[in-house]
Amino acid sequence: MAGLAHKDVLRADQFSKDEVALIMKLAGEYEAALLQGKRLNVMEGKILSTLFYEPSTRTRLSFEAAMLRLGGTVVSVAEAKSSSASKGESLHDTIKTVEGYADVIVLRHPQIGSAEEAAKATDKPVVNAGDGAGQHPTQSLLDFYTIQKEKGTVEDQTIVLAGDLKNGRTAHSLALLLASYHVKFIFVAPKALQMPREIIDRLKAARIDVQETEDLADGLRTGDVLYMTRIQKERFEDPAEYERLKDSFVLTRKHLDQAKEGLTVMHPLPRVNEIAEEMDDYSGAAYFRQAANGVPVRMALLALVTGRA
Amino acid sequence: MAGLAHKDVLRADQFSKDEVALIMKLAGEYEAALLQGKRLNVMEGKILSTLFYEPSTRTRLSFEAAMLRLGGTVVSVAEAKSSSASKGESLHDTIKTVEGYADVIVLRHPQIGSAEEAAKATDKPVVNAGDGAGQHPTQSLLDFYTIQKEKGTVEDQTIVLAGDLKNGRTAHSLALLLASYHVKFIFVAPKALQMPREIIDRLKAARIDVQETEDLADGLRTGDVLYMTRIQKERFEDPAEYERLKDSFVLTRKHLDQAKEGLTVMHPLPRVNEIAEEMDDYSGAAYFRQAANGVPVRMALLALVTGRA
Amino acid sequence: MAGLAHKDVLRADQFSKDEVALIMKLAGEYEAALLQGKRLNVMEGKILSTLFYEPSTRTRLSFEAAMLRLGGTVVSVAEAKSSSASKGESLHDTIKTVEGYADVIVLRHPQIGSAEEAAKATDKPVVNAGDGAGQHPTQSLLDFYTIQKEKGTVEDQTIVLAGDLKNGRTAHSLALLLASYHVKFIFVAPKALQMPREIIDRLKAARIDVQETEDLADGLRTGDVLYMTRIQKERFEDPAEYERLKDSFVLTRKHLDQAKEGLTVMHPLPRVNEIAEEMDDYSGAAYFRQAANGVPVRMALLALVTGRA
Repeated sequence: MAGLAHKDVLRADQFSKDEVALIMKLAGEYEAALLQGKRLNVMEGKILSTLFYEPSTRTRLSFEAAMLRLGGTVVSVAEAKSSSASKGESLHDTIKTVEGYADVIVLRHPQIGSAEEAAKATDKPVVNAGDGAGQHPTQSLLDFYTIQKEKGTVEDQTIVLAGDLKNGRTAHSLALLLASYHVKFIFVAPKALQMPREIIDRLKAARIDVQETEDLADGLRTGDVLYMTRIQKERFEDPAEYERLKDSFVLTRKHLDQAKEGLTVMHPLPRVNEIAEEMDDYSGAAYFRQAANGVPVRMALLALVTGRA
Repeated sequence: MAGLAHKDVLRADQFSKDEVALIMKLAGEYEAALLQGKRLNVMEGKILSTLFYEPSTRTRLSFEAAMLRLGGTVVSVAEAKSSSASKGESLHDTIKTVEGYADVIVLRHPQIGSAEEAAKATDKPVVNAGDGAGQHPTQSLLDFYTIQKEKGTVEDQTIVLAGDLKNGRTAHSLALLLASYHVKFIFVAPKALQMPREIIDRLKAARIDVQETEDLADGLRTGDVLYMTRIQKERFEDPAEYERLKDSFVLTRKHLDQAKEGLTVMHPLPRVNEIAEEMDDYSGAAYFRQAANGVPVRMALLALVTGRA
Repeated sequence: MAGLAHKDVLRADQFSKDEVALIMKLAGEYEAALLQGKRLNVMEGKILSTLFYEPSTRTRLSFEAAMLRLGGTVVSVAEAKSSSASKGESLHDTIKTVEGYADVIVLRHPQIGSAEEAAKATDKPVVNAGDGAGQHPTQSLLDFYTIQKEKGTVEDQTIVLAGDLKNGRTAHSLALLLASYHVKFIFVAPKALQMPREIIDRLKAARIDVQETEDLADGLRTGDVLYMTRIQKERFEDPAEYERLKDSFVLTRKHLDQAKEGLTVMHPLPRVNEIAEEMDDYSGAAYFRQAANGVPVRMALLALVTGRA
């Protein structure tokens, strides 16, 4: 049996397939309940503390809305850096204090490994809401949930990850999370910004079919899901290369002509210009639905780690 | 029948007289319920997101208290600028994301027109809590409510608006909101800071009696309500003019000798020195009651636009 | 009978022994209720406004958690300075406005006397959460509660206060609060940072046994409770003195060899390096329990001053 009570949520790859299935099932139930206007009281009497050492309106509000939708309450620190930390307090001590105020802690921190450090400091469940270049596991779970919801299943899907795959945390995590399923990957990135070898190796060890290309058209022909990520001009080694490739990394309506019927387009947001606004009306443009999916998925996680579900 | 369900609140002049009457009636009922210590659950299960791109403790807290008094909950962004927007996200995209977390959005933004832009991005109701030099409709409604409560009715009142009427957003909005009622205006402002011609013209087209003067005493003699606004020394073209007129724009107890019996004194707050502190004990000094009126008026609006009343 | 309904909480020394006993009893009951997983609705329908003119995550979250644990709700201002105050509004006016939104106000402000000023402006209860170098009465009450809980009673305890006793607000307040009980004090501080004469005189007037020393060992031999506070190198007049004494002011496991059996170690937090991390596993290390005690103590205060208990 899968069980997550009193566990921390630290890495996207920490979950067994059973655990992922449990989270997805519960998220689906919560979403259905919300759509029916049902009032949930799963977290009644519980307090969530959000603790954000770097601001992230999207992620913080998504967690807080999840807690409130479950009938729980929230104490919120939108910009932790301006307070105790500036007096020289360690993260360990801050967490040891906040555990006295809350039943579950959601932490965002610019330093890699900070969520694990926090989890060691307390018996209360800690949920990693992004630790710098490290992990952002709830993003990967909501991405997974979105593919499942848009496509019916993740099984047998061809997933195209496009953009800066070298530095893109969300792309790495999603790839590793999907490695336990029967999917095919097409990685679209300029040479200098390709998916790290280490991740490719782990996928191949899991017998996942991986194709690498610089050309978005290669992905669009057979891809079921296109996951766009941001690519910064400054990351290109050669301006000429940027000029040559930039059209692959700004998705427009024109690209749909080359795409397989029913392509689902995802993006972790915020987007800058990776997806043209004209795409928003396309029925397969799922990125805002994807953001909204963060609420039921985080509801499921909060309920599970506090032992309320 | 007036109906506001699923509508946005963007401009002070968007409301029909029936709609204003509905808001005032409901606000009065909510205020009475609060005074009787009744617990309301009108907004149970609903989430308000406040989204403030410039800080305004007064306005944000007033909306949040309104939501909580109705049994609803809140996710709060006190300083939105430090987050997603700094990563280059458009207001459109932020709103498309926040609509996934909340049932109603209260937006404050320094740019004129931003509330309309936000309203276009989402089907969820958007309430404008101030868009720069543009509109601040809930302020005008609470001003209206205050006059009605202090005077019994807005009908047949002589309203004196004093201060910087050229730049004062709240004065413009209140004048236009009252233009559908039988009121008389006396505008007291130095020559360089008079009420814009365009607004005077609209009032006259509505057959409103308007008198303009530089001397506060002219207003005090017949005014029923004195609405003071801030006037900044820097706005005067000529320092000598400031010296000559400044006494008209700092209200003291002495002024009451010239005033009609029972004068009601209002101010949108914060005041700096436009009203001497000695005025606070005067029974007609309504400005703090006016601020408190923001809660029942915003309760009414939140309940109406979400279809809960 | 002790009664605190509609009173402000401004100074640690404002409470009679009966009032302190009432707060402690109620805090104990609330803590027991929380441990049993009971849901409290003492503050149902009430709103707390936290108003922090300087950030303090610990204190703000502790008050907010206390309010939520009682079934109340919160409107929160984590950094008040960036808002109305910057437009030139007085604290008096801010409080007169916020009283329209909330049933109880918790204020933190850098200026000494600001809490008293706020209390004068409103009939709603004001709780001082620290006014600069002035008072922080709820800290003293939770310190008191902690001693009582760790030791069974404050009576007949030998309390060692160590660190910068000249500038340490929490040490002053705790000493004065305990002056009505049968305790013994040992004050451990370098010459230049000793407890102010005025406080020593008040303790002696209350017939409290006070011993002063520069050497922590003197305190450890007979102390039941060691209350460490921060000592900053810059405060020493002479670097040589700092070198000579610094070992007295960084508590390590080694010190326990010199200490009386069962020593309780407290600290108001945040600590920087006054207590080595190796101390955290010591059963008498009470500082994180002390921080957690802030919740039931503040629950008791909020319930009492609003007349709900």
